[in-house]
Amino acid sequence: MSAYNAPVEDMFFALTKLANIDNISKLSNNTDISSDSVKLLIEEAGKFAKEKLDSINSEGDDKGIKLENGLVRMPNSFISSYKSFIESGWFSIAGKKQFGGQDFPWSVLVCINEIWESANMSFAVNNMLTQGAIELIQEHGNESQKNLYLPNLISGKYSGTMNLTEPHAGSDLSDLKTKATIKNDKYTIKGTKIYITHGDQDMSENIIHMVLARLPDAPEGNRGISLFLVPKYYDDENGNKIKNDIKVVSIEHKLGHNASPTCVLSFGENNECIGELIGEPNCGLKAMFTMMNNARLNVGVQGVAISERSYQRALSFARDRKQGFSFKKGKKERVNIIEHPDVKRMLLEMKSQIEAMRGLTVFTAETIDYSNKLSNTEEGVEYLNLSSLLTPIVKAWCTDQSVFITSLGIQVHGGMGFIEDTGAAQYFRDSRILPIYEGTNGIQALDLLKRKLSLDGGKTFKKLLEKMKKTAFDCKNANLKELSTMGGLLEESITSLESSASWLTEELNKNPDNSAAGATPFLNMFGWILGGWVMCKASLTIEKNSLNKELGNQFCNEKINTSLFFCTTYLPTASALMSTIKHSHKSLSVIC
Amino acid sequence: MSAYNAPVEDMFFALTKLANIDNISKLSNNTDISSDSVKLLIEEAGKFAKEKLDSINSEGDDKGIKLENGLVRMPNSFISSYKSFIESGWFSIAGKKQFGGQDFPWSVLVCINEIWESANMSFAVNNMLTQGAIELIQEHGNESQKNLYLPNLISGKYSGTMNLTEPHAGSDLSDLKTKATIKNDKYTIKGTKIYITHGDQDMSENIIHMVLARLPDAPEGNRGISLFLVPKYYDDENGNKIKNDIKVVSIEHKLGHNASPTCVLSFGENNECIGELIGEPNCGLKAMFTMMNNARLNVGVQGVAISERSYQRALSFARDRKQGFSFKKGKKERVNIIEHPDVKRMLLEMKSQIEAMRGLTVFTAETIDYSNKLSNTEEGVEYLNLSSLLTPIVKAWCTDQSVFITSLGIQVHGGMGFIEDTGAAQYFRDSRILPIYEGTNGIQALDLLKRKLSLDGGKTFKKLLEKMKKTAFDCKNANLKELSTMGGLLEESITSLESSASWLTEELNKNPDNSAAGATPFLNMFGWILGGWVMCKASLTIEKNSLNKELGNQFCNEKINTSLFFCTTYLPTASALMSTIKHSHKSLSVIC
Repeated sequence: MSAYNAPVEDMFFALTKLANIDNISKLSNNTDISSDSVKLLIEEAGKFAKEKLDSINSEGDDKGIKLENGLVRMPNSFISSYKSFIESGWFSIAGKKQFGGQDFPWSVLVCINEIWESANMSFAVNNMLTQGAIELIQEHGNESQKNLYLPNLISGKYSGTMNLTEPHAGSDLSDLKTKATIKNDKYTIKGTKIYITHGDQDMSENIIHMVLARLPDAPEGNRGISLFLVPKYYDDENGNKIKNDIKVVSIEHKLGHNASPTCVLSFGENNECIGELIGEPNCGLKAMFTMMNNARLNVGVQGVAISERSYQRALSFARDRKQGFSFKKGKKERVNIIEHPDVKRMLLEMKSQIEAMRGLTVFTAETIDYSNKLSNTEEGVEYLNLSSLLTPIVKAWCTDQSVFITSLGIQVHGGMGFIEDTGAAQYFRDSRILPIYEGTNGIQALDLLKRKLSLDGGKTFKKLLEKMKKTAFDCKNANLKELSTMGGLLEESITSLESSASWLTEELNKNPDNSAAGATPFLNMFGWILGGWVMCKASLTIEKNSLNKELGNQFCNEKINTSLFFCTTYLPTASALMSTIKHSHKSLSVIC
Repeated sequence: MSAYNAPVEDMFFALTKLANIDNISKLSNNTDISSDSVKLLIEEAGKFAKEKLDSINSEGDDKGIKLENGLVRMPNSFISSYKSFIESGWFSIAGKKQFGGQDFPWSVLVCINEIWESANMSFAVNNMLTQGAIELIQEHGNESQKNLYLPNLISGKYSGTMNLTEPHAGSDLSDLKTKATIKNDKYTIKGTKIYITHGDQDMSENIIHMVLARLPDAPEGNRGISLFLVPKYYDDENGNKIKNDIKVVSIEHKLGHNASPTCVLSFGENNECIGELIGEPNCGLKAMFTMMNNARLNVGVQGVAISERSYQRALSFARDRKQGFSFKKGKKERVNIIEHPDVKRMLLEMKSQIEAMRGLTVFTAETIDYSNKLSNTEEGVEYLNLSSLLTPIVKAWCTDQSVFITSLGIQVHGGMGFIEDTGAAQYFRDSRILPIYEGTNGIQALDLLKRKLSLDGGKTFKKLLEKMKKTAFDCKNANLKELSTMGGLLEESITSLESSASWLTEELNKNPDNSAAGATPFLNMFGWILGGWVMCKASLTIEKNSLNKELGNQFCNEKINTSLFFCTTYLPTASALMSTIKHSHKSLSVIC
């Protein structure tokens, strides 16, 4: 069995050499996350994750959860790890300081979140959703709501959920039917929500549901949706703790995430489900979407995380499993399968993609940090736009790839990969929801095409392209042969990206269906090329600043060779997607 | 819920327009499979599969199997469907007529096998393995063994298994340790075998295990392995039925194939496991490998089958599920998701790949048929070589793609895809063993590189390339614009294929590790380009022979548009794999 070890070196590299964590640390007024401290922080998180979360992961997968008398029962080990998680202070890293949080910037959050998600996704998703609820209340709640709920959510005493989907309203929320009625100064909620992750559990004292519903006489469609805070327990005027009228109708039997309860919740069957309005009436969807952008980044991080975990297990297996002979050593001695070039190639596919994805998530998180810190400046707005452009790509590309990467993780194991006890199959199963939830990857692709490419009149996209071209140019002109190879490939792929984007944008006005047919392959192409860009930047920074002494020869050589592999393997196929993008629409009438 | 319907039209097209079933029918002296009869045959198989196999598939997945008192218990529905399967005569289509079989050629077998595997893979794999045992005994058994075992295996009264793998000997069989000792005129077997599919079950009266083991003083390695027939029950000299000394140690808890018992079998714990030698001593691996080539084609067919089933379910869901608005109809009316271009694109990815894979399996099966029918001629040897070249590609490419295709099948369902009750997830889980068993896809790639490319001094490969170039040329010069586009893309991709093959072949002699690093991407490239070739041939044949009247406008238009989609989507990325093939080796030292 292979235990999880946080990829501390690569995270530290991403934070200090791809992002500028010292800059963010200064802007945040937080020395805990400076380059001097952040490595220790990541190491500590890694230690906690290994001991308390990874160790109970397969038990959770195996035993799952139970619905007893209308309440969800988590495995005991999850309950005690949740307690440790709170006590150690890890739960509270995202909230604002005034409410007891540690207010870590997103650059650091994505690294630490990756660690939790690698070690135990069914467990970590609770924290991820609570971070979302905290963000929603911080942004849109009134003072009394903030004071009442934030300290308990930030400490982990309470946890949070998101209630959007209904049986007939999945991707298309405009059709949602849950109703809210004013009753005294509160609201009563009535309706059924599905796919509510951690919709009930017995780890936290209380659960704060963030629920989308319609007020009476609300306009139809998206503009008539309001956001409500609906607690599992609330205090009545006499201070008595009342169980709210929320019923767990059922829990889903899923492909993965077995220890993460996915609930059907019925609100207000007896007309006594009490909620509070968050923000303005009919502005709920907008509020939800500000939060959702960062949630989408977090789902991208889940993709990186499950891939990393799968990689570590496959690597460890390949180092141990003896099978067959190598060309070099001949027929005298059986070798560990890691000596077979095809096994090495599979593992390097995994590693190179993971490092590119991780670099991209940290870079995207940094743009969010700058946009938060510089929010009132022109620069801040530019960063906000850039993060908006990148987020759907991170969400979709990293999660699509996570399914392929965890599949490779199984393949490395051979027959044992198909046996559940080995553990590799769980990551494959767990990964499969990621391209679906928080907006399917198809929706991310349409978001990129219809809204993000045209941000700031297309300037955001253009400026990003300029940056990428600069990196390609610098690589091409570097002395190291590997770098010039990568630079050339990056340059070519950017040309295809630009041409594809122009075609899509023009077509979007003339024949939107034709353009939409190319949206997903375009997002994939963009993801691969951004990945190539990140790897080129990583190698360039090592070469330009002669980092071998600081980071060690091994790390630097590995990074440059991994980058070379990434660029020679994936950039040519990414460029070739241009054909798919421009031609897909021609044949779609076949499907009807 | 969507019931399975056999893709009769497309199978009939493949058999009559891509292959020449009337020719095979004549050579086989079997009018049941002529173009006049074969459609009805496929329809009947489809009907049986729908009623008796597809209908119990999800129950099998859900309930699985049980090990009780050392015996495997199948779901009751499987036992009764097995009975119907035998009674209807479907079990016996593969065996020779003199032993009660129907002796269908492989072209037809791959279609009918696809039907069983689509409907219920856990069930069908029993028949697939029995076909393998029949083939082994037909080829290598002596007359008395043939007379004793073949009629019962062909009727389905008995079923067969393959016993190769041991805990320490997976892909590398040369290290296997199971022992056989001569005892009177029989042999006793001692050892443990793992991953024995349908290693025990209570559907057939007896189970005939084909077991690899070593005789005393056998040479080390592959040349010391013999093949034994080891029945679950045998008759002693007095005609008493004796239970052989074979113990089901455990059954595996797997990612998929839940109703297919995967057993650990212990032979001869009490030194009383009786077996018979099949063929010559120490020639067991060679015998197993002649059979395995066709078994590998059958696994490729499983890839097509599970993809087809996943596609049918996704298509049916997309036609029913209302969500969102279309560009065309505007915001007035919600549409079925099949109207969204991105959903259409996913479904067309599935459909186009399935049709290309099916065409390729039928084409490959036809080469086997010709090689069997013309076995003593030069032409026959050429066909044999061609089938040997194609088989690893069919096995690996069709099964790799089946994982991606069934993953798309989930994606089309959105959130519901992740819920087990929906049924889409089972296909994804079931597909995942296909790239692993009967030789991992990495091993197929090495087989292609090291043995198959150089068959007949490289002439087999060259002749295939000539055929493909001819098709590209004919397409380019056809009047239909779609065809000339496809022809151009096919031509370009063949150039990349040729260049990659030359590089790999040269490198194989100089630096075999470098060459091996490119083996898997080369096999994938070859698979895609063969798929493109098959689709080009399909479209060309429709156009050249004006088949619209015979096959209907809808079928012909769909086939041409599906081909166009396949070629514009996959041939450019296939060509781009040349970079991966030639560069992968440069960075592999990173993984150690």
